[in-house]
Amino acid sequence: MFEFTLQAQSGRARAGTFSTPHGDLLTPVFAPVGTAATVKALTPAQLHDLGATLVLSNTYHLYLRPGDELVRDLGGLHQFMQWPGPLLTDSGGFQVFSLSDTRKIDADGVTFKSHIDGSLHRFTPEKSILIQENLRPDIIMAFDECPPPLDRAYNEIALARTHAWAARCLAAKTRPDQALFGIAQGGIFPDLRAQSARRLASLGFPGYAIGGLAVGETKAEMHAMLDVMDAELPAHKPRYLMGVGSPEDLVNSVARGVDIFDCVLPTRLARNHAALTRTGRLNLKNAPFARDPLPVEPGCACYCCVHFTRAYVRHLVVANEILAAVLLTLHNVHLLLTLMREMRAAILAGTFAAYASDFLSTYRGTQGTDGTLGTQALSAR
Amino acid sequence: MFEFTLQAQSGRARAGTFSTPHGDLLTPVFAPVGTAATVKALTPAQLHDLGATLVLSNTYHLYLRPGDELVRDLGGLHQFMQWPGPLLTDSGGFQVFSLSDTRKIDADGVTFKSHIDGSLHRFTPEKSILIQENLRPDIIMAFDECPPPLDRAYNEIALARTHAWAARCLAAKTRPDQALFGIAQGGIFPDLRAQSARRLASLGFPGYAIGGLAVGETKAEMHAMLDVMDAELPAHKPRYLMGVGSPEDLVNSVARGVDIFDCVLPTRLARNHAALTRTGRLNLKNAPFARDPLPVEPGCACYCCVHFTRAYVRHLVVANEILAAVLLTLHNVHLLLTLMREMRAAILAGTFAAYASDFLSTYRGTQGTDGTLGTQALSAR
Repeated sequence: MFEFTLQAQSGRARAGTFSTPHGDLLTPVFAPVGTAATVKALTPAQLHDLGATLVLSNTYHLYLRPGDELVRDLGGLHQFMQWPGPLLTDSGGFQVFSLSDTRKIDADGVTFKSHIDGSLHRFTPEKSILIQENLRPDIIMAFDECPPPLDRAYNEIALARTHAWAARCLAAKTRPDQALFGIAQGGIFPDLRAQSARRLASLGFPGYAIGGLAVGETKAEMHAMLDVMDAELPAHKPRYLMGVGSPEDLVNSVARGVDIFDCVLPTRLARNHAALTRTGRLNLKNAPFARDPLPVEPGCACYCCVHFTRAYVRHLVVANEILAAVLLTLHNVHLLLTLMREMRAAILAGTFAAYASDFLSTYRGTQGTDGTLGTQALSAR
Repeated sequence: MFEFTLQAQSGRARAGTFSTPHGDLLTPVFAPVGTAATVKALTPAQLHDLGATLVLSNTYHLYLRPGDELVRDLGGLHQFMQWPGPLLTDSGGFQVFSLSDTRKIDADGVTFKSHIDGSLHRFTPEKSILIQENLRPDIIMAFDECPPPLDRAYNEIALARTHAWAARCLAAKTRPDQALFGIAQGGIFPDLRAQSARRLASLGFPGYAIGGLAVGETKAEMHAMLDVMDAELPAHKPRYLMGVGSPEDLVNSVARGVDIFDCVLPTRLARNHAALTRTGRLNLKNAPFARDPLPVEPGCACYCCVHFTRAYVRHLVVANEILAAVLLTLHNVHLLLTLMREMRAAILAGTFAAYASDFLSTYRGTQGTDGTLGTQALSAR
């Protein structure tokens, strides 16, 4: 259980298998996010049909609502949300820092107010592990602090805390059927990132996450940090880049040795009328699509694109129909999962560099949202 | 095409087959409503898996948005919404009277304001047929006036208009691949209902709708009108009771010779957290369901009930998740479609009276919303 086997490398890109109690993950793998124990707008059956294997859910959200003890009493998260495959929960650390109105950090943990009703709560490393053991996913995450990436002084303090908390999480963990991943932090500072990777590796986790990226730094800074992580993290364990999921980031990160990803992007964009495509994003609310007989992405094999026109999807968006979110979510998740399968096949075939170069040469990210991206970042490896 | 064959009667309940260009309808049949060219919260694939055959869409809504000419140019409603089975559109009459802010009725038609943007529009019988020919469903409806059911004087005036408009609709119709149904009105007045049935029958429609019921009259009044319709409408043509779809109304109306139904009830209730069950309604938002490990309806074979607990569905409702609407819609539509299949089987087996009596003896309707109902109404036949 929790064996990670590397099948192939192509450049620094890796194809592997990570075994879990609920099935093997073929990496690189992208996890759609089921924040509140549901990948928004999809049934588990639809998610399964898309070929999803790993699904992420949020400790912070489930702790507040419906409560981790309720989920435990109803048989755990797999049973509760009826996802038969591998599940991962984050530690709640990121949400405490990003969603909570008020938070007070001390050496022992974090006191925060619920974003739902303002009630007061406290997370410690031990509490985060207890909640995640109640939820009972296959992969759980160490409780970490996610500081602003550019503030060196803060990052040094936070990193010491994150490392101490990682050790406490390991000590608190009791279940053999869950793998606890450590989370490396360190902002945009190569020496802190290297220090974090080495410190966590010395603690001996079955997998390592890269936290604190895709939170405001530039693409070049993110890529530089991934290069450090790739060099410093143990090669024989899976690496999980948290919160990353734009097509270009997935390609650029797999190119830098990352194995596991999660992101709300495909599902959140869908509920905001946007489709991810191999050439960039489309906002289906736009008037030019009103009579467009093409599918959202010509050539795409997803249920949305095989059946429906852009004109129909735009109509659903304008009429505020639930089916708009459903169809665009199906499409966006399909695209990212297909991209991961293609990258894995290219790695196994030893042709990843050509695949990535081809993909990035036709992909146009969204300026402002994604910042700069593309081929020059990849060739900078 | 548009042949109606009666296979069996059990009491006055009828089992038949109505042939359309997009397949045979086995009656009695319930049509889920796809107001804006989508049955809210479901994909056509899910609808098909539920066993739906006939789907209704709304002329008024589609005329305003996205426009019937746009739907025509994109290949018609079947192509646009990707429903491969039989489709039915109403005439827009009911919506003009129920949704529009301002409306002015004259002998020639109705001028009304859009409920979306207040823009001014005019429907005549000819315009309604033109729109429905642009939309191109299998079954289209005559443009009618739907007056308050208890106002005799108004009903007499409106009925004359409805009959004149029915003749104009017949004359305006040009497509051989669409069946135009006449709509009988007459409020709660047996003589007006009988007059309407005879007048429409003399015009010779391939099917007859019963309009203006389930709009505020009592159950007893509705049943009395259905008894008149059953006696007066041609026996060899399908009868369609518009806008009816609670379980008890379906059973009581099939018992009175109705073949076709449509209603937003199962889909609208689902989006308001309510489940239809064989014993009555459940509001899944209610606190007692928070830790309830039972399915929404024990014994139900739908996707929601086979997989999920009431506790999970309540969590989705409280968290305002799209999946709550999806799962409850799947359940509610499944129940009504199953009920229709069971009634058809009972009619074919000659055991409809026992089936209906059994069903109504355990079903509790919702007071206030449904008014009185049940076995005494049925036994009053």
